[in-house]
Amino acid sequence: MTERTRLRRLPAQGSHRVEDLHAVLDAGFVCHLGLVVDGTPMVVPTSYGRAGDTVYLHGSVASRSLRAAREPVQVCVTVTLVDGVVLARSVFNHSVNYRCAMVFGVPEVLTDDGDKLVGLEAISEHVAPGQWQYARPPSAKELAATTVLRLALDEASVKVSEGPPDDGDGPDGELDVWAGEVPLRTVRLEPVADPALRDGIGMPAHVGDGAIAPGTTRWRDLDGR
Amino acid sequence: MTERTRLRRLPAQGSHRVEDLHAVLDAGFVCHLGLVVDGTPMVVPTSYGRAGDTVYLHGSVASRSLRAAREPVQVCVTVTLVDGVVLARSVFNHSVNYRCAMVFGVPEVLTDDGDKLVGLEAISEHVAPGQWQYARPPSAKELAATTVLRLALDEASVKVSEGPPDDGDGPDGELDVWAGEVPLRTVRLEPVADPALRDGIGMPAHVGDGAIAPGTTRWRDLDGR
Repeated sequence: MTERTRLRRLPAQGSHRVEDLHAVLDAGFVCHLGLVVDGTPMVVPTSYGRAGDTVYLHGSVASRSLRAAREPVQVCVTVTLVDGVVLARSVFNHSVNYRCAMVFGVPEVLTDDGDKLVGLEAISEHVAPGQWQYARPPSAKELAATTVLRLALDEASVKVSEGPPDDGDGPDGELDVWAGEVPLRTVRLEPVADPALRDGIGMPAHVGDGAIAPGTTRWRDLDGR
Repeated sequence: MTERTRLRRLPAQGSHRVEDLHAVLDAGFVCHLGLVVDGTPMVVPTSYGRAGDTVYLHGSVASRSLRAAREPVQVCVTVTLVDGVVLARSVFNHSVNYRCAMVFGVPEVLTDDGDKLVGLEAISEHVAPGQWQYARPPSAKELAATTVLRLALDEASVKVSEGPPDDGDGPDGELDVWAGEVPLRTVRLEPVADPALRDGIGMPAHVGDGAIAPGTTRWRDLDGR
């Protein structure tokens, strides 16, 4: 296999390796939660966190539907990271490079305060590491007002699509048409203080070092080429 | 209203203004398409384009389900743009700033070749402006192999959450806890040529000027502060 062959594009590859599943879930922090409400599909974005072979979800609209349901409710949790736009020689072969995890199952609506705190910590530390210890913890009233869902990673799939377009080796490779990829990155900018912040409160180290939203790229580290 | 009041955070605002809906749909290019398959929700990412009061979708797994269905299939198309992580003084008030459009309806699976080309052009020009004219157009065989869905924007909602945390004016404002936002941006890097590209094919102007994925920020234009 030559270097060029090795770099050729593959169709979106499915994986059942748990490491691949964890890698995609850990790189995102907003999922799309799908459920059926009154016979109609509903897809809502919500934050989540992973702990071992479990994802915890923090919902609102969807959670209300789940709480109100008298029977177990099947959901689909999809996390998609868009990595680039693939420009092929033909319109037909254009595509998007992405990593996508889909998790199916019946989530548990947590009722035990201890369980809920474990889930909230997983979500909080997934999105904003360090804030769980730094910010004021949830009060009993706040905890009661918060719905936390727990979903096992028992039924899940991962797909990854990467690389250049795949029409370079076929007849379209003879066309005088440029082909390649425009890579995309999610970048975190410098933190912006709340205008209402009182004087004299410094930015804590875990925020200042740009470690919030760890699956994204810090803008200072971004290399455009 | 003072400048500070004006900047205060509002809860996620719903909108029924069609301009707001169009703005969110035009800023994204990957949606999450939700549908019910065998009684179970399924959420798949797919590319889309808007033309007037219509969105066109280009699916695969979901499209097969829609094509196979003998009855009209209700879907939910959700487009979410994540704009930042909101760090509040309490764990409870942490949140994500986002723009989200949800469209509900029964999509039409297009069968007429002319209709399909209109839809494919809308999708192509939405993601990669200029490529529809530049790349090789779809052949009759490719067109037959492509499923294009058309969905009216009749039933849709938009939510926008932005600004700093909202706990600066309450009792938590007295805590010695830093609060603010870590803004996030989706950035497009410099185009990367296909390693299989033949010598002598220059990058076309519409790619070289960085206009692919127009809802994202060109990395050269990124200001981290």
